[in-house]
Amino acid sequence: MLHIRNAWHVACWSMDLAETTPFAITIAGDPIVIFRSESGTLAALEDRCVHRLAPLSLGRCEGETLRCMYHGLRFAADGACVEIPGQETIPATARVRAYPVVERHSWIWVWPGDPAKADPALIPPAVGFDDPDYILGRGQLDYQANAQLIHDNLCDFTHLSFVHPASFGADAEWANTRPKVTPLPRGVRFERWVRAQSGGRSRGGPVDVWSSYEYHVPGVLLMPTASFPVGTADRLGDAPPPPDLPRTGVTFTSQAVTALTDRTSRYFFSWGPHRDHGDEALRDVLMGLADKAFAEDKTMIEAQQRVIDLDPARHAMPATFDKGVVLYQRLAERLAREERPAAAR
Amino acid sequence: MLHIRNAWHVACWSMDLAETTPFAITIAGDPIVIFRSESGTLAALEDRCVHRLAPLSLGRCEGETLRCMYHGLRFAADGACVEIPGQETIPATARVRAYPVVERHSWIWVWPGDPAKADPALIPPAVGFDDPDYILGRGQLDYQANAQLIHDNLCDFTHLSFVHPASFGADAEWANTRPKVTPLPRGVRFERWVRAQSGGRSRGGPVDVWSSYEYHVPGVLLMPTASFPVGTADRLGDAPPPPDLPRTGVTFTSQAVTALTDRTSRYFFSWGPHRDHGDEALRDVLMGLADKAFAEDKTMIEAQQRVIDLDPARHAMPATFDKGVVLYQRLAERLAREERPAAAR
Amino acid sequence: MLHIRNAWHVACWSMDLAETTPFAITIAGDPIVIFRSESGTLAALEDRCVHRLAPLSLGRCEGETLRCMYHGLRFAADGACVEIPGQETIPATARVRAYPVVERHSWIWVWPGDPAKADPALIPPAVGFDDPDYILGRGQLDYQANAQLIHDNLCDFTHLSFVHPASFGADAEWANTRPKVTPLPRGVRFERWVRAQSGGRSRGGPVDVWSSYEYHVPGVLLMPTASFPVGTADRLGDAPPPPDLPRTGVTFTSQAVTALTDRTSRYFFSWGPHRDHGDEALRDVLMGLADKAFAEDKTMIEAQQRVIDLDPARHAMPATFDKGVVLYQRLAERLAREERPAAAR
Repeated sequence: MLHIRNAWHVACWSMDLAETTPFAITIAGDPIVIFRSESGTLAALEDRCVHRLAPLSLGRCEGETLRCMYHGLRFAADGACVEIPGQETIPATARVRAYPVVERHSWIWVWPGDPAKADPALIPPAVGFDDPDYILGRGQLDYQANAQLIHDNLCDFTHLSFVHPASFGADAEWANTRPKVTPLPRGVRFERWVRAQSGGRSRGGPVDVWSSYEYHVPGVLLMPTASFPVGTADRLGDAPPPPDLPRTGVTFTSQAVTALTDRTSRYFFSWGPHRDHGDEALRDVLMGLADKAFAEDKTMIEAQQRVIDLDPARHAMPATFDKGVVLYQRLAERLAREERPAAAR
Repeated sequence: MLHIRNAWHVACWSMDLAETTPFAITIAGDPIVIFRSESGTLAALEDRCVHRLAPLSLGRCEGETLRCMYHGLRFAADGACVEIPGQETIPATARVRAYPVVERHSWIWVWPGDPAKADPALIPPAVGFDDPDYILGRGQLDYQANAQLIHDNLCDFTHLSFVHPASFGADAEWANTRPKVTPLPRGVRFERWVRAQSGGRSRGGPVDVWSSYEYHVPGVLLMPTASFPVGTADRLGDAPPPPDLPRTGVTFTSQAVTALTDRTSRYFFSWGPHRDHGDEALRDVLMGLADKAFAEDKTMIEAQQRVIDLDPARHAMPATFDKGVVLYQRLAERLAREERPAAAR
Repeated sequence: MLHIRNAWHVACWSMDLAETTPFAITIAGDPIVIFRSESGTLAALEDRCVHRLAPLSLGRCEGETLRCMYHGLRFAADGACVEIPGQETIPATARVRAYPVVERHSWIWVWPGDPAKADPALIPPAVGFDDPDYILGRGQLDYQANAQLIHDNLCDFTHLSFVHPASFGADAEWANTRPKVTPLPRGVRFERWVRAQSGGRSRGGPVDVWSSYEYHVPGVLLMPTASFPVGTADRLGDAPPPPDLPRTGVTFTSQAVTALTDRTSRYFFSWGPHRDHGDEALRDVLMGLADKAFAEDKTMIEAQQRVIDLDPARHAMPATFDKGVVLYQRLAERLAREERPAAAR
């Protein structure tokens, strides 16, 4: 599998990165250790000491540096070794790779590709716990599956009617109508009305729902959902709702799929209502739905991975409703290919 | 390992296949889903949706069809896709493989080879729970071992004296004398007298036992056992007992070894007395013996597999008592080879 | 990985080898069964029956022989098959490999290489439970790691300051000063003073410690430790303490690393005070320290192995304090290479 390395990957939640406690994650096959120094500087280093290849994530933060707790080599935030116990000269090769790392929207983002291209402006505009407008909950799941299978799932909501018939997909609408799909430079946008969706999410009677989300490389879903009185979709002739049209409900979910290895992935998600349209109680209802539904996805996708592994040469047969899946797959393949040296493409 | 695909493989017990509940099994490396439709028709399909390779065994029976519960494609019992949600045209390639499947003798039999050759007359004459003459119990075990090692075990009862010294092999006779071994077109027949075998099975004193069984491809053992007063074997000069010679005991065991993959196998077995020679209590005694003895086999065979895996190039050294093992191995190899395209033999 | 086969490998503790109960271990990839015959003779055989490759370690000691409990073949201590049930002629090829095996210093030692070179004089002089001078405790740990990583750990005590900061490495001395390292024909000797080491091991105030140990192929550490009043090291100008200089404390630890496979190893260790310098209570204190510290090593080394496996081509960067590690690695590589046929070197 080709990974997109020139992209910001979610490594963990901000609040899970304790002060001066190294945190280990593998991203696109790279072992990475993340830590906050005593002064609060964030650093992401290759999680492999140059000396004997022990993981630095078993190490200790000391001031602005991270010490390997096998034989005591100490590394600065830029990856340079700054101390070898009992040795005066430090070779220039004594250096681990440093990764661009940014904290934003309650996530720690790491760029495993070319550091010169690591522009923080490319971080997708997720909604974090620092956003005063939303009341969010959060969760995460580890998958025994290739990240691509999760991307496919999130770029095609047809599955709602079948995988989540008791919750998200209670209305057959998800399977029977198609969203408008629009390519973006680094993602795909999906837009649709779902008419007269029954309650649950909004705690009330049926509503017309404007579902509009973007899926950004390397696997970040950003979805505001707005509901309106039944009849609104018809009245607007399926056009997007104007910004000033009063909503009966508004929620936002941010989700991120990080490829750990070719067969393991981590899925991060938050969800909750806009402060004007709900409270902690509604957030808890939504998170209850999400926990159940995302476990249903995991069951299906991990089973799918096992079937694929029985005969990896087998090809999938696209359906017409796969338009978004195919658009995103092609975009991802193109971006992954373009960042390889010309000879390897 | 070569699998014999042109043969009926036991997939499960009839009574374990609930109405309209799909059942998953891998046979000779093929993922297969079996289901009974609402009208009771039995079907066996490739357990892999054409669309995105999700397992159909996580799906739902609807009438005579099976719906994939990932994106809703629906398949008829012949494997043809009959619905793609929200899509009018169904491509001719939207079809999963259908396997010949027959319910007989309380087992569901699947033919993973060429459907044109799937003659139900080739199903070995096992004794099922529908046979009014026998009072049976049943069990099954999953092995972490190649099915061949279990075939070898069942084609050579020398091991009874060593693996089961406290039960089946309490008499050294099993190791010290040899059965008559006769090749069959699709199996091997084993016949012998065991003189003055002590009780346990027959709840009484010593008896002469006429042990006669057949081992059919792809791994089906059918064994009636008849006991007689001590002295019968001598009196008959080791000839088979005439059908009308009164028995002091009669039991029947049917057993089937199904290769799931090259390293996993499933072993099904039933056993019990003829109604004229026993009751539920004797059946329970026999099944208690079987459960203990078959666990002893599993311990030995899985350990044998681990030793083989340490050095797969190592050859076994046949002994004279391996005649049946070797006959069956050669038959199985020949049949497996003959069903391959000529170029691949 | 090249294993040194022409060396004595520790297979188990003497006291763990029960009378006439076969014991299984894999050494350098070879499955081996060890047993004491009824007369007490010790034997080590290939743990793989010639007949169908079942493990003899599931077998039964009978007199001076070991019977395979699958089909009953029986083997003498020299590996020759002496019985095949119901078969008169025993082929000359019916023989399993026999390994030189010696019981000494409370360990069972096996020589997996050329038997002609198996000189018991090459067994390193460990201190066993039969030594009246020492009061020992013992333990063992199984590693999911290549044995080389454990050899590296034991040939460089720099790690004491970092992996065991709360026990063995409480004094920074271990990281900041270097031992004298001396090559031996089949090992490496390490010698150093550690000045004014604080108590714990010796239950008293600070002492000067003379730490001197040898590390022998294939992975045997022998370490007497002697302590002296503070100032002794300075007074002797760092020279070794004369044998008649009074000690304030003396302990001995024998440790052995046995490569089971390329990714699994077993680590045996004993430790305790000289009878003139301690008692059972001190032994228990020392073993408490050892159990904790060796678990710390295992955590680090198994994590190191996992990091290495992510990118096996990655090279380690030696530090100046690796002198002993490098000496031992080169010795081990040379010995392993020399015992290969010339063509394979």
